[in-house]
Amino acid sequence: MDITSPNFENAGPFTRAWEWLKALPVKLWSLAVEFANKMKKLGKDDPRRIIHSLKVGVAITLVSLFYYVRQLFDRFGENGIWAVLTVVLVLEFSVGATLGKGLNRMLATLSAGALAVGVDRVATLFDRTGQPIVIGILVFIVAGTVTFMRFFPALKARYDYGLMIFILTFCLVSVSSYQDDEVLEIAYERLYTIIIGSFIAIIVCICVCPVWIGETLQNQMANNLEKLGNFLEGFGREYFRLSEEGHSTDDKSFLHGYKSVLTSKDKEETMANLARWELWHYRFGFRHPWNRYLKVGTLTRQCAYKLEDLNSYLKYFEIQTPTKFRREIQEPCIQICSESGKALKELASAIKKMRRSTSVNFHIANSKLAAENLKSKLIDNSLWENANLQEIIPTAAVGLVLIDIVPCTVKIVEAFQELASRARFERMDDRVSPSNDV
Amino acid sequence: MDITSPNFENAGPFTRAWEWLKALPVKLWSLAVEFANKMKKLGKDDPRRIIHSLKVGVAITLVSLFYYVRQLFDRFGENGIWAVLTVVLVLEFSVGATLGKGLNRMLATLSAGALAVGVDRVATLFDRTGQPIVIGILVFIVAGTVTFMRFFPALKARYDYGLMIFILTFCLVSVSSYQDDEVLEIAYERLYTIIIGSFIAIIVCICVCPVWIGETLQNQMANNLEKLGNFLEGFGREYFRLSEEGHSTDDKSFLHGYKSVLTSKDKEETMANLARWELWHYRFGFRHPWNRYLKVGTLTRQCAYKLEDLNSYLKYFEIQTPTKFRREIQEPCIQICSESGKALKELASAIKKMRRSTSVNFHIANSKLAAENLKSKLIDNSLWENANLQEIIPTAAVGLVLIDIVPCTVKIVEAFQELASRARFERMDDRVSPSNDV
Repeated sequence: MDITSPNFENAGPFTRAWEWLKALPVKLWSLAVEFANKMKKLGKDDPRRIIHSLKVGVAITLVSLFYYVRQLFDRFGENGIWAVLTVVLVLEFSVGATLGKGLNRMLATLSAGALAVGVDRVATLFDRTGQPIVIGILVFIVAGTVTFMRFFPALKARYDYGLMIFILTFCLVSVSSYQDDEVLEIAYERLYTIIIGSFIAIIVCICVCPVWIGETLQNQMANNLEKLGNFLEGFGREYFRLSEEGHSTDDKSFLHGYKSVLTSKDKEETMANLARWELWHYRFGFRHPWNRYLKVGTLTRQCAYKLEDLNSYLKYFEIQTPTKFRREIQEPCIQICSESGKALKELASAIKKMRRSTSVNFHIANSKLAAENLKSKLIDNSLWENANLQEIIPTAAVGLVLIDIVPCTVKIVEAFQELASRARFERMDDRVSPSNDV
Repeated sequence: MDITSPNFENAGPFTRAWEWLKALPVKLWSLAVEFANKMKKLGKDDPRRIIHSLKVGVAITLVSLFYYVRQLFDRFGENGIWAVLTVVLVLEFSVGATLGKGLNRMLATLSAGALAVGVDRVATLFDRTGQPIVIGILVFIVAGTVTFMRFFPALKARYDYGLMIFILTFCLVSVSSYQDDEVLEIAYERLYTIIIGSFIAIIVCICVCPVWIGETLQNQMANNLEKLGNFLEGFGREYFRLSEEGHSTDDKSFLHGYKSVLTSKDKEETMANLARWELWHYRFGFRHPWNRYLKVGTLTRQCAYKLEDLNSYLKYFEIQTPTKFRREIQEPCIQICSESGKALKELASAIKKMRRSTSVNFHIANSKLAAENLKSKLIDNSLWENANLQEIIPTAAVGLVLIDIVPCTVKIVEAFQELASRARFERMDDRVSPSNDV
């Protein structure tokens, strides 16, 4: 290339353009291959994506039937296209999102259509010049007020789409009414085409391999707890034993897994808002306490901040050799790590299976004991005499953080217990030992 | 109430219903008052919300003119309503969101319309029975493929709306084409009504009190840095001096301000994605390095995790009295707090004003010196002899975290400097001391 490129640079613009054009098919081909590979990976990572794409294709083809069949077309008229639009707009990846959008769209169309018909009745009291002015003023007031209402956090979380459709339908029907006297018919046609579209979208979404966002949220909460548990267990091994065996070459991905938990807040809130629409899910039912999941999520994040802190002490470790002090406090530290880790992983599995847990209290009690033990060792003056403070202080700080992690875990367990009782999680051993139950 | 309620409970269902009905107006009135108060508060918190609502009202009324004016209506026909719909859907709170949606909508309509016309030409090669089958298959393939493309993270971030409109327009035009032979006209009418609607929305959004999301993002980054700075300065006072004066009764809100920074990731990313559409903002220009803002944001969050850690040590403090040890390390600790805090606040003001900062390096150098000083004091064995370990260990741990905060701040400063040079921030004193410039 070093030999050809000067020639290439000296060549005229046409030659260069020709070279570029010659290289184009190869470039395009490699881009296409890259794109195809990415698509393949996306599908492999979550096959539900492929299924969703097929579902959208099926639903749209289905609703298009209204157009293809002459008889149906004659009944619906031009407005049948609204059913197609509705399917495209309403059919979302999860059942919660589809139900939320569908119900929002239907209710908003109904109420806005009714209001617009009322406005039209008022406007007919005026003459031909007055009508557009009255309608214009009312459209301005309604559009402005409803737009402002979209800023309410409570409304925005669940009814944002409905409020937008409300403005849209209201403007559409009242503005059309000026040119077309059959305003009632416009509103009515729009309403039932939208109902048909929404129902097709909802039925396809629920009946063909449904993705319940509530289940996804629950699994994510469980995975987050498991990541914390894995970190704690791994940290104990890493911080206290590694030195004896030299640097281990194991997979250390568990040391970074918890990082995604740090920023999970917004995603969890969105999911919980969507999950509230999934009224008919067989396991969650009508009044599932999604707020309690968010509470567990908040406490999980608070625990993750502590792990971030612990993680930063691993770097101190690398430059140091173990001392008497570290060996002395090693046992309770490792016990806190492993018992708290087990408690968190136990909770994760309990949440996944929607069961109460019997062994979690046992692990918590153990980790509390270990914390007491660690506290008394830390303030044992004999350990600190003539010690290398540069090494001893970070290790003591790790001990403090570990002691702090125990109440953090206890809070998570309490939040889980409240969730379990509100959500009526299954008792594992009602008959064996009810008193032992958490 | 205690006297009347038993009577009320013993009363028949009709009496109770009547009582409930009598109380209804009062309840409704108090609800309405509460709602009005909340609205007032929302508007007061951010008056731009009221302006936005008025803008939406104006834009919709403006576009409705197309319907009211007979001559225009005759030219546009029924499809004029698409212009109204477009304004409702495209006009968003910020310029970035409006531009993003408007451009997405116009480009998607153009390309999908062209594709649909092409598909229609292919379909006409078949007979009347074959046509719907061919169109149906092609609609299925296009809808499925584009829906799958919406899962690409890179496409989802900026072109999600466009991809949805692409499916929508493609289905609408090809499905209509079966009933209506003037498919080219349908596509064309849809395209120019959407262009008119988008332009009205964009013009109203930019010309009437525009809200630039890039500016909002920049201010938020600056506010986040300021919150961290406030916490650090406050923490130094709180942890080391409070004991001398007893519990201070000052406002301690600065100790919680940083908490919102912990979960700012998703919001910042959304804002940066929208800010990329604001090509014509006078201060940001075409290639503003929004990625660099996100980098500063990530480092700010990492620093906030450390503050969360520091905050947890405040509780240890409350049960203890100051000792010799704490008094000894007090000076460098307070210096780290105040110098790092000043550096962060200096950065915040520099970002807000889009200027480089001259004094930040000075504060950083001071805090590095203080950290060295603190390190040597911490490992001074004479301080640890016969000390109360229960008190000394948490204080030493606070010292460690403070030492850790210095490199954290340095990283933020470095990220800021890269941002400043990429974004061509103004130099404050080019002529006075260029070598001193950060």
